[in-house]
Amino acid sequence: MLTVIKFGGSSLASREKVENAARIAAREREEGNRVVMVVSAQGDSTDELMSRAHELSAEPDLRELDVLLSAGEQISMALAAIALHELGVPAVSLCGWQAGIVTDGEHGGARVRAVHTERLKRELDAGRVVVAAGFQGIDEKGDITTIGRGGSDTTAAVLAAALGADVCRIYTDVHGVYSADPREITTAVRHGEISYDEMLELASLGAKVLHSRAVDIARREGTALEVLSSFEQGSGTRICAGGERREVTAVTSDAAVAVLRVKPAEPQNVAELLARLAGEGIATDMVTCAGGELALSLPSEQAEKAVQSLREGGGEIALDGDAAKLSAVGAGMAGSPRAAARMLAALRREKIEIKMVYSGEIKTSVVVGREDRRRGLEAIHKEFFE
Amino acid sequence: MLTVIKFGGSSLASREKVENAARIAAREREEGNRVVMVVSAQGDSTDELMSRAHELSAEPDLRELDVLLSAGEQISMALAAIALHELGVPAVSLCGWQAGIVTDGEHGGARVRAVHTERLKRELDAGRVVVAAGFQGIDEKGDITTIGRGGSDTTAAVLAAALGADVCRIYTDVHGVYSADPREITTAVRHGEISYDEMLELASLGAKVLHSRAVDIARREGTALEVLSSFEQGSGTRICAGGERREVTAVTSDAAVAVLRVKPAEPQNVAELLARLAGEGIATDMVTCAGGELALSLPSEQAEKAVQSLREGGGEIALDGDAAKLSAVGAGMAGSPRAAARMLAALRREKIEIKMVYSGEIKTSVVVGREDRRRGLEAIHKEFFE
Repeated sequence: MLTVIKFGGSSLASREKVENAARIAAREREEGNRVVMVVSAQGDSTDELMSRAHELSAEPDLRELDVLLSAGEQISMALAAIALHELGVPAVSLCGWQAGIVTDGEHGGARVRAVHTERLKRELDAGRVVVAAGFQGIDEKGDITTIGRGGSDTTAAVLAAALGADVCRIYTDVHGVYSADPREITTAVRHGEISYDEMLELASLGAKVLHSRAVDIARREGTALEVLSSFEQGSGTRICAGGERREVTAVTSDAAVAVLRVKPAEPQNVAELLARLAGEGIATDMVTCAGGELALSLPSEQAEKAVQSLREGGGEIALDGDAAKLSAVGAGMAGSPRAAARMLAALRREKIEIKMVYSGEIKTSVVVGREDRRRGLEAIHKEFFE
Repeated sequence: MLTVIKFGGSSLASREKVENAARIAAREREEGNRVVMVVSAQGDSTDELMSRAHELSAEPDLRELDVLLSAGEQISMALAAIALHELGVPAVSLCGWQAGIVTDGEHGGARVRAVHTERLKRELDAGRVVVAAGFQGIDEKGDITTIGRGGSDTTAAVLAAALGADVCRIYTDVHGVYSADPREITTAVRHGEISYDEMLELASLGAKVLHSRAVDIARREGTALEVLSSFEQGSGTRICAGGERREVTAVTSDAAVAVLRVKPAEPQNVAELLARLAGEGIATDMVTCAGGELALSLPSEQAEKAVQSLREGGGEIALDGDAAKLSAVGAGMAGSPRAAARMLAALRREKIEIKMVYSGEIKTSVVVGREDRRRGLEAIHKEFFE
């Protein structure tokens, strides 16, 4: 079996954690697998390098920023390989350019165009664990690139697809995918299996366990993904095509939401208002429009900018800056309003005021006051899981 | 004019120093030069990376150690390029593998076999300052190598030779090559010019300004070298083929010398004793043999090991562990004992006991008691320079 295993920065943040990750890779190999280990930069070293660049320049050259940041993964891959050697495991570390990861030239957010797997396969054939740098590649000019958001998860998914891996295991500091954030909801249950689609929705709702680009690649290529703990054996959630069709798989919350209501001077101006926001680069989340009134939710930190932008368009604007979003994701919703009805009923029992609602194919979101976030989350989790 | 300029770790140890180095490169370019800037890792970051490897393994894999350490130069070259961009200077950083520096596969101490200058020339032709990582290259397998001792100086000399540079300028934290260490001898004078041969002798005597391998390459290729201060304009020493033929160019001292005297059981055993030391990897410095008695000087820290090794050979052994070596280097000595005579006379006037003497083509060394080192150094410097 060929496995790609990935360790994020928090799983490599110290000497002991590097040794722990190496032991996991060694164990995978002892079980008879061919192993590719994808690593991120250690701890917050990427942020640290980034801040050194910003000390020198408010807008550092993007090509050079990629050269700088990619050194972070280079350091952790070498340390991981050294730790594997120390365990008696033959290992070889490869930078993006050595692993044949070819991207476009979009520095800071490059897309992988191809993986030339010759060297990877040669090293695997020689019985070595390949430790590959996440997050980085090389463009056609021979320059170092980084692949931006979700970096190392994406590298793992890309290498798993290119090598036809049997499974891509994302080792992280959580134990898998839960019905809610277990730090908040102590009764949250871990799922053994969820679908790619559910994972994509959860990732877009801010679940930090796995980046959506990686899930998307795995779904397209049919690679089985697993999310599991670096620090505790026997845990984990498998992400695959089928999975149980639960009405609700997980509930999430986002405490940094603002709601804007706009009554345009003329009703037909709604499109113009939205175009204005898009032009300013403002990311809206939910948008509803009824009776000539536009309501939209967006990240709190963009609220002021949005208000200014809309004010130029005229009309009445009301900002509620202290909202929160509660969402439920489940492939079993399948477009039925049943789950939404259960959510709303649970919130009504708690006398929580509802500001906005959106119900989609596998996700239902409700915007409430920020002070009701925790209580609302508990009520919804209880409704579906307890 | 094409100039290669090199900055060591202490010249890049902080944000301000990186900016300073970038300003020097910008100035070189404003003067109409095509500029290649070779950089070391910042400050003591190489030592820091090395210690992280040693936390994981008593003997880290050498290939992986090269991957790890080379990240240090990668970070400083990216920062230097960012600083150049901030000054409005077009610049591009290149790792060893991007700069076409091909070495053998001797990890940790690779030798440069070839420089493929296509990319370097293309970037220079485009009007960019090329910031090249010192100390690193790539072997035929596509693996990262480091070129060991004298790393970045050697890279600068190698690139200067490959590109046919007009001059290779080594920017450092001293102002040039002096008649003695100016921290000890306040009357020391800076030379405007010295010969490659003198610089080689001074480097082998521990002068830290420039590594001997770089001098050797520059001599072979006829590249003019300059040693000058990163922090003060208008200083510097030029190292070239001719130069003034001073009887003495500089005096140096080494405070960590031991002297061993051995009277072998049988006189013919001297060769065997030396072979024994060589077999133990003990580096001797001066070796004299007269009247069946062997005298040798060596680094203090190897003295105990040498005594043990010699003891097995039998005979009488006397160790003087507290000696120091005073040396004078000058191309004008030209094998004449005149400089040696002046040195010895100067020491005799100070009533300093002389333990050993060696006089060669362009160097004379004298071993004295460690307590006489400073006084002896001053006396010799005064004899030749004041």
